[in-house]
Amino acid sequence: MYKNRLNIVRSKFELLGIDTLWVIQPQNRRYISGFKAPDGQLDESSGSLFINKDKALLLTDSRYTIEAEEEAVNVEVITHKEGLINALPDIFHQLRTRKLGFEAGYLMWDLYEKAKKQASLQSPAVELVATAGVVEDIRKIKSKEEIDLLSSSALLMGDILSKVIEEMKPHQTERSIAWKIELLIHERDGDGVSFPPIVASGENAAVPHATPTNKKIVEHEPIILDVGSILNDYCSDMTRTVFLEGPSSYFKQIYDIVREAQISAINSIKIGMDSFEADSIARDVIKKAGFGEFFCHSLGHGIGLVPHEKPYLGQRNSEVLQEGMVFTIEPGIYIPGKGGVRLEEMVVLEKEGARVLTTNADFL
Amino acid sequence: MYKNRLNIVRSKFELLGIDTLWVIQPQNRRYISGFKAPDGQLDESSGSLFINKDKALLLTDSRYTIEAEEEAVNVEVITHKEGLINALPDIFHQLRTRKLGFEAGYLMWDLYEKAKKQASLQSPAVELVATAGVVEDIRKIKSKEEIDLLSSSALLMGDILSKVIEEMKPHQTERSIAWKIELLIHERDGDGVSFPPIVASGENAAVPHATPTNKKIVEHEPIILDVGSILNDYCSDMTRTVFLEGPSSYFKQIYDIVREAQISAINSIKIGMDSFEADSIARDVIKKAGFGEFFCHSLGHGIGLVPHEKPYLGQRNSEVLQEGMVFTIEPGIYIPGKGGVRLEEMVVLEKEGARVLTTNADFL
Repeated sequence: MYKNRLNIVRSKFELLGIDTLWVIQPQNRRYISGFKAPDGQLDESSGSLFINKDKALLLTDSRYTIEAEEEAVNVEVITHKEGLINALPDIFHQLRTRKLGFEAGYLMWDLYEKAKKQASLQSPAVELVATAGVVEDIRKIKSKEEIDLLSSSALLMGDILSKVIEEMKPHQTERSIAWKIELLIHERDGDGVSFPPIVASGENAAVPHATPTNKKIVEHEPIILDVGSILNDYCSDMTRTVFLEGPSSYFKQIYDIVREAQISAINSIKIGMDSFEADSIARDVIKKAGFGEFFCHSLGHGIGLVPHEKPYLGQRNSEVLQEGMVFTIEPGIYIPGKGGVRLEEMVVLEKEGARVLTTNADFL
Repeated sequence: MYKNRLNIVRSKFELLGIDTLWVIQPQNRRYISGFKAPDGQLDESSGSLFINKDKALLLTDSRYTIEAEEEAVNVEVITHKEGLINALPDIFHQLRTRKLGFEAGYLMWDLYEKAKKQASLQSPAVELVATAGVVEDIRKIKSKEEIDLLSSSALLMGDILSKVIEEMKPHQTERSIAWKIELLIHERDGDGVSFPPIVASGENAAVPHATPTNKKIVEHEPIILDVGSILNDYCSDMTRTVFLEGPSSYFKQIYDIVREAQISAINSIKIGMDSFEADSIARDVIKKAGFGEFFCHSLGHGIGLVPHEKPYLGQRNSEVLQEGMVFTIEPGIYIPGKGGVRLEEMVVLEKEGARVLTTNADFL
């Protein structure tokens, strides 16, 4: 599997005009090599892959050497002692690098400048070439095995969410419900949450990315639960909006519009469609109902080793939807000061259209 | 407090040769403005601050507008609809920007290139100026209030860790102990862990950044517990190495060396010392005992809104240690295939020297 991924990466070199690729993004690194260590912080890297036609080197520091040697396959692990930048000349030499592709969306400006300086000192000088989405474009098409893993993660999350919703009672706090979700993921042997659970009730539900508070849930108000698990390294992401004792007529109307938008998208999306067109299908339903200005985010996003990845389904994205892509369909309407509704399913795109991986439940 | 921080930032503009600073790093943004939203992923930003002498603008997208308006102080919140890059000309105009400082260690190469292009289209062109550590150098000196918050977070973590260690029994798994730590932080109303708990026993303790496994703990082997909480936004970080029924004579010797190295550093560090010299004090003890090659990381790191920040205490860092800095002292010895010992306390540097904020416990 890793060998195959490595070879797909290599097959792109000619078109990119490079002979070596530097992979620094943690999930790209892991997808190709199996080395799982995440980056500790935004300004800390646990390793870099350097790949040429024949060889792959995993550069790391001594904190990660043992883990890298255990996990990484088809690569030689090299422990740098004086930092990555000082190890570059030796890497260039070993790989006979002349044109080094780097991930323009993940390499920090100062690290780029330092690498460029080292590159310019080589004889002949090594050229740095910006690349975008080299590994992400492979990751966005899921294999049969990956689809099974995403499906298992989605089913686990769906089971847990149904249980939490069944047991919901007035006066529970948003925070306690969020914590219960984390507890159940742990009890069911999930690896953890794929992002901090969102539990947003009443007017908090008007904030798409709300943080759970100590507010208590009450009858008739919208309660948005947007949650995800990680199981065997693969993420899930799903959203339900529920109402204790049913919704007010105002939110019943909004719920029905969001649901219609979602179902229209699920039923219409097919292979070959452009991602912004998928967004438009749902958006048009909401616009036609007069709530266009209150659907303030994109329709969905790909999901895999991270909760948000290619393809992105929004008005400012254009990408052909392909067989084997797994993404979310999550329209929403948010009324400031009042509340909101969001409904989210994960789907896989197949010959017959979009197949829902989550439980596709309607809680109204 | 935020006003004061904003003014300290502004006082650096002249020396930096800039009239506007672009702050994209999440904790820098939050330290100055109060806006707490983290970045969702490596490739997702929840906002950027632009500061000139008179004004501060917080650029965000519509998912975060309500939160930004509630949390951010002394700044005007602007919601961009077509992405940050397209909003730049208006920002430059509003702030009369000619020389824009950016955070070279946090700005991705492609975002820099796009911003540079927009800047070059202005009339007159806006110049981009690389900066490093502008806000971090303010953050590294803690106020009295911050020291109290860090102390509370450290005491909470110490209480919990003592309880977990007291109740440790043979046959518990590393993973179950790690989970118990998370549960207790939640029960005690902490905001969560500051990093995933490390519980590493036996030969797993030879891996400095081990992930807890289903391995059961057994008598006499070293068990490293490296854990941190977040309480009122501030992090703690501490490490104990314990042995059920006491250590073997081999690990007793190693423990005593690490402890001596740690105590030497705590007792010797003072205001005005260079950070690499602090590292050398502990390292020399370990070298003299013949284990120098097995102390494979730095002595410590600053801690605050994130678990790792300035100052860094290592052989490749040089920085004058100042009053009000809070950092860890964490020497370790790791023997591949056998196990390891690490001991970590948090200290604050005061006129009298380093004062330990954690419980400074000796479990041997």
